[in-house]
Amino acid sequence: KGNAEAGEQKAMMCVACHGASGTASAPLYPNLAGQQEAYLEHSLQAYKKGERSGGQAEIMKAYVSGLSDEDISNLAAYYASMKP
Amino acid sequence: KGNAEAGEQKAMMCVACHGASGTASAPLYPNLAGQQEAYLEHSLQAYKKGERSGGQAEIMKAYVSGLSDEDISNLAAYYASMKP
Repeated sequence: KGNAEAGEQKAMMCVACHGASGTASAPLYPNLAGQQEAYLEHSLQAYKKGERSGGQAEIMKAYVSGLSDEDISNLAAYYASMKP
Repeated sequence: KGNAEAGEQKAMMCVACHGASGTASAPLYPNLAGQQEAYLEHSLQAYKKGERSGGQAEIMKAYVSGLSDEDISNLAAYYASMKP
């Protein structure tokens, strides 16, 4: 299980699309606030591993490529902890 | 833009994992209630096109394979219309 406070420190790059409160800035981007932690972690890992293509997948892969497994867990905990 | 009422008619198969109110029944499944309509539509199309692998992607592909583009739009409208 991730550390939400540590996740917040890594979330600066997420804000442009997913919003400072986890609410997406454009229709094609998902809201993240209150999403299930395990699903968020899975999704980030899927982008990192190249298991998603199309849409914004290449952009997400680029963002996620510099994150460690721990960073990913922490980001998942951070967004899961927000109120939708 | 989809028709939420028509989407509800197609949502019977979604309920086991995503919940009658769009709240997931297990940690690995995403909540759908209140998610962005365009993102939901994109995601369902991505599963249908085989743009996602790993995790539950094969299961999702199987479920989505029988849905028309209109069904997908309607389901996206239905889940987007729910309160998270």
